[in-house]
Amino acid sequence: MAESYERIEGVEVGQYVGYRFFAVDPAWRRLPVEERMAGKEAFADVVDEFAGRMEGLRAYSTVGVRPDADLFLWTITERYDDLLELGAALNGTPLGAWLTVPHSYLGTTKPSVYTDKKRIRQGRIAPRNAPYLIVYPFVKVRPWYFLSFEERAAAMREHAEIGARFVTITNHTTYSFGIDDQEFIPAFEAEEPADFMHLMMTLRESEASRWTERDTPIFVGKLVDVRDALDALDGATTELPGAASLYTAPDGTRYPAPSR
Amino acid sequence: MAESYERIEGVEVGQYVGYRFFAVDPAWRRLPVEERMAGKEAFADVVDEFAGRMEGLRAYSTVGVRPDADLFLWTITERYDDLLELGAALNGTPLGAWLTVPHSYLGTTKPSVYTDKKRIRQGRIAPRNAPYLIVYPFVKVRPWYFLSFEERAAAMREHAEIGARFVTITNHTTYSFGIDDQEFIPAFEAEEPADFMHLMMTLRESEASRWTERDTPIFVGKLVDVRDALDALDGATTELPGAASLYTAPDGTRYPAPSR
Amino acid sequence: MAESYERIEGVEVGQYVGYRFFAVDPAWRRLPVEERMAGKEAFADVVDEFAGRMEGLRAYSTVGVRPDADLFLWTITERYDDLLELGAALNGTPLGAWLTVPHSYLGTTKPSVYTDKKRIRQGRIAPRNAPYLIVYPFVKVRPWYFLSFEERAAAMREHAEIGARFVTITNHTTYSFGIDDQEFIPAFEAEEPADFMHLMMTLRESEASRWTERDTPIFVGKLVDVRDALDALDGATTELPGAASLYTAPDGTRYPAPSR
Amino acid sequence: MAESYERIEGVEVGQYVGYRFFAVDPAWRRLPVEERMAGKEAFADVVDEFAGRMEGLRAYSTVGVRPDADLFLWTITERYDDLLELGAALNGTPLGAWLTVPHSYLGTTKPSVYTDKKRIRQGRIAPRNAPYLIVYPFVKVRPWYFLSFEERAAAMREHAEIGARFVTITNHTTYSFGIDDQEFIPAFEAEEPADFMHLMMTLRESEASRWTERDTPIFVGKLVDVRDALDALDGATTELPGAASLYTAPDGTRYPAPSR
Amino acid sequence: MAESYERIEGVEVGQYVGYRFFAVDPAWRRLPVEERMAGKEAFADVVDEFAGRMEGLRAYSTVGVRPDADLFLWTITERYDDLLELGAALNGTPLGAWLTVPHSYLGTTKPSVYTDKKRIRQGRIAPRNAPYLIVYPFVKVRPWYFLSFEERAAAMREHAEIGARFVTITNHTTYSFGIDDQEFIPAFEAEEPADFMHLMMTLRESEASRWTERDTPIFVGKLVDVRDALDALDGATTELPGAASLYTAPDGTRYPAPSR
Repeated sequence: MAESYERIEGVEVGQYVGYRFFAVDPAWRRLPVEERMAGKEAFADVVDEFAGRMEGLRAYSTVGVRPDADLFLWTITERYDDLLELGAALNGTPLGAWLTVPHSYLGTTKPSVYTDKKRIRQGRIAPRNAPYLIVYPFVKVRPWYFLSFEERAAAMREHAEIGARFVTITNHTTYSFGIDDQEFIPAFEAEEPADFMHLMMTLRESEASRWTERDTPIFVGKLVDVRDALDALDGATTELPGAASLYTAPDGTRYPAPSR
Repeated sequence: MAESYERIEGVEVGQYVGYRFFAVDPAWRRLPVEERMAGKEAFADVVDEFAGRMEGLRAYSTVGVRPDADLFLWTITERYDDLLELGAALNGTPLGAWLTVPHSYLGTTKPSVYTDKKRIRQGRIAPRNAPYLIVYPFVKVRPWYFLSFEERAAAMREHAEIGARFVTITNHTTYSFGIDDQEFIPAFEAEEPADFMHLMMTLRESEASRWTERDTPIFVGKLVDVRDALDALDGATTELPGAASLYTAPDGTRYPAPSR
Repeated sequence: MAESYERIEGVEVGQYVGYRFFAVDPAWRRLPVEERMAGKEAFADVVDEFAGRMEGLRAYSTVGVRPDADLFLWTITERYDDLLELGAALNGTPLGAWLTVPHSYLGTTKPSVYTDKKRIRQGRIAPRNAPYLIVYPFVKVRPWYFLSFEERAAAMREHAEIGARFVTITNHTTYSFGIDDQEFIPAFEAEEPADFMHLMMTLRESEASRWTERDTPIFVGKLVDVRDALDALDGATTELPGAASLYTAPDGTRYPAPSR
Repeated sequence: MAESYERIEGVEVGQYVGYRFFAVDPAWRRLPVEERMAGKEAFADVVDEFAGRMEGLRAYSTVGVRPDADLFLWTITERYDDLLELGAALNGTPLGAWLTVPHSYLGTTKPSVYTDKKRIRQGRIAPRNAPYLIVYPFVKVRPWYFLSFEERAAAMREHAEIGARFVTITNHTTYSFGIDDQEFIPAFEAEEPADFMHLMMTLRESEASRWTERDTPIFVGKLVDVRDALDALDGATTELPGAASLYTAPDGTRYPAPSR
Repeated sequence: MAESYERIEGVEVGQYVGYRFFAVDPAWRRLPVEERMAGKEAFADVVDEFAGRMEGLRAYSTVGVRPDADLFLWTITERYDDLLELGAALNGTPLGAWLTVPHSYLGTTKPSVYTDKKRIRQGRIAPRNAPYLIVYPFVKVRPWYFLSFEERAAAMREHAEIGARFVTITNHTTYSFGIDDQEFIPAFEAEEPADFMHLMMTLRESEASRWTERDTPIFVGKLVDVRDALDALDGATTELPGAASLYTAPDGTRYPAPSR
């Protein structure tokens, strides 16, 4: 480890990526329907507003499947403080008074401001609005980091080759070392959850799989309009149509999911 | 790992299988009896309705035995979004405002849309309405996946041979790799819980048992009419008769448990 | 593992054994004293009623010692569904609306309905109403099950010999493989908790101790009339006399602890 | 293990030692001040009363430092049931309706009623009312118990020699094998928490340290009048003077901490 | 370990360092806005008051990022009891009746009062008011402590050299052996969270990294005026400006963060 680091100015900006999971207090369902509607509307309005100033802000429903969360937001932004400001704004909505956050993950694709160029070739995260997103925190066992560069590169090449055969699955992994409790946040868009099951089952026999310390909890979310995700909380809707008619802009226009 | 994968059209559909566990807030028991009755009835109606559009939807009671759950639903469906829609519909019932979900497991028998034919020979899940169902999440240690195919096949053959001798026990295991926190969800129908205890004690000495990473929590449920499972929540019934008179169809007809 | 199994009719019946732990919501203590008294009385009446139809149903207090439970019930019955029915009946009492169940353990002494005769020589559980009961869930490490029969027999013989020297301690271990999260539920009646401490400290150096995976949480309960266990929940009594005057029969007769 | 055990009458009595941790429901702080005062007074009166019949009963504050507990009681008594009776009596106070018990540890110094004389040389626990008490549950890895007696004695001798150099720190370790979830409860009186930090850091390199399985959570408590510990719960006092004026006797006399 | 220890008088005083994390009960957000404002103001007043008598007391917001905490206080003081007194004072504010403390860490830089001079060269903690603070509890595997002094020194030298290249990151690690559940509390001030991610990713391959037992949960906090951290709890502000105008003194003067 003899190479020297020096500060680099003007490097590419990169992104912070957040996955924030919400569960509603069951007692919220006992409120009058008008009160619930107003609470959901205010929450959705905040999401719409922030969707307009971030690179990406999508809602995914986990209702009826996960035990610990009802929906999650996938946020992509260049500016760390956007995550704090979105959190504060959601706290200010009436629904925020009934939500808990059982999980929240923070990753980044921001390059180093120091020279270590070889290490970071992470491109920008660019969602394609597939109907499902699978996301989980990931930690490798420490001995992985003491394999030679060649051994690790070979393992990751095999891993990537298997992944590439599952052409309907798109990888959006980000880095969390030192800024959250995992090392990576793998995230995958898919057409159908079972497709991803087969990819992961196939990868179990790949070399990289040997070095896994933790890769749970695993969340399968369905990409929906945030209003539908909220209406599923109290059964105001029992239909969760997909990405066809996503998001209402502040002016009321409904448009496909933001993908700036 | 040189074989190549290509997308297959028109493969058999397969199933998603969910186990969703519910616990009632003890405070619910303080509500007036009419309010409780209405809440249970609405919940049961949703179950009945969805039982009519899924391949299987059964209720199992764990009252008085498990510490963490009062009942669970076993859902079998070809369509993933059915699980979300059932969840949303249950959220819309008055009882849904008093329930928590301490556990929820998702598995599938859907075949790969890619060629890997050898790997998936999973048949369809077809319950036989035995009085008890034992279910648990299962994870193998990673080195298992690096044994040779022959070693693994021999271990699983021994495992299956032992299981086959316990003729009253039916296996309904499904796959969860990458879509939930376990790898498999073993599930077994049995005539009597103690029979399954003897099967598992016998299997402890089988080769496959060596490679277990996690196989808890273990749930023993009794197959009952969902109305009986709900009436056990507040002691409205203290009898839990078995599968003889299961489910009320939307038109009011009561019929044995659905087994399409 | 070549021996073949076939179903045996008419084997001895055996028992299901449950340990169900209760903790009261502290807010219950804020209710009017009459309401608390009525709730406790209804709970005790259910226990009395079921004590009359089970092989054994005893109450143990853990008040002031365990952090997670206030009392537990030790139930012994030939019929699994008795456990469910007792659970439903307790849910129907006013106190049931303020209780949580932090732990609940299920074991059995039922013999296999298949031939494997050598394996099961478990006798029936017959409590002797000693003042204290120590109970905990127990899991062995998997390699234990791959020792030779002789190695395991020798280890268990040494273990039993040490136990036998502590003549005031009675062992009531049951089997939980596949029907609960542990493999065994060791349970010991003792005259004094410290006696059992010395037994366990002595056993730490025995061969069998090497193969322990998990043996906690450990509960020390004092055998009391269920009414005393309940009165300790809100300080209605601060005395917890022992087994001298246990249980009120449905006809009002008070008699020593049931020991059928 | 050939020596034989026989019951000994008239052995020295010894002690049970309990550490019981309390956390107050934040909602309690919303009650009228008079109601809070009455609740604290009743709690303190129970502590005073039991301090008069036990060998030791001291209160320690962890306010502002631990996340999980606000205060704890250190109880020393010859009679196990004193712990239950104290628990029941505290349940009967108005404050008991707002307290939870996140942790509770049970140890003993009672000698064996069987002959194994070499094993137990544990003296009685005699607190010296130092300003701080550090306490934690402790479990050794099982292979420790299979070292030779000489190896273990040498390790413990080194351990004790290091401890002895920290002359301001007094050790009050008790035994929990089989009666609680740990094997030992080390407890240390100290003049200043940092002194104990240096002792533990020094011990990290001692042989005995190699054999540690678990030694957390670690609690640092400050010895205070129980009334001060309770007044810190709602900020009625923000001063926590030490042991100078401890405990009010049932007759109203205030006296230094009991040290019988 | 033959060197002898003797008490040293007049050693340098050193510091206790606390990190105390707070989460607000979502139900607090349902209170009238005036009540919330008064609660926040009282909490901030206590922080201001104690900031005037401690060496350091800063507020960091984790809103919108961590799942388990909304803000934390970083306290630096020579006197242990200051931590208790601050805790009691915050308990006395109306907001204290709605806060829980999911985590709280205690470290120290106090030197030993015994001679072991080589061991402690820890300087004083002197924050520089960088916009972000990353903090986490840290435990090494026990075998680390049995490496030779030279091996450990070499590993720590490499570790420090890598850290030194990230010139924008300042290390404030303190010691917790025996006084909290971790051994160290690493804490780092940084200009940007992603910078720290790159430092930690780089360190993964350093020798010291091999010996890590636990280094989570990891918190990234933004240094803000405590009033802004509190206003983010209910969305009273959705802006979280940094360290420019920190803290209001008891006399109402606003001044940059204390850094005595």
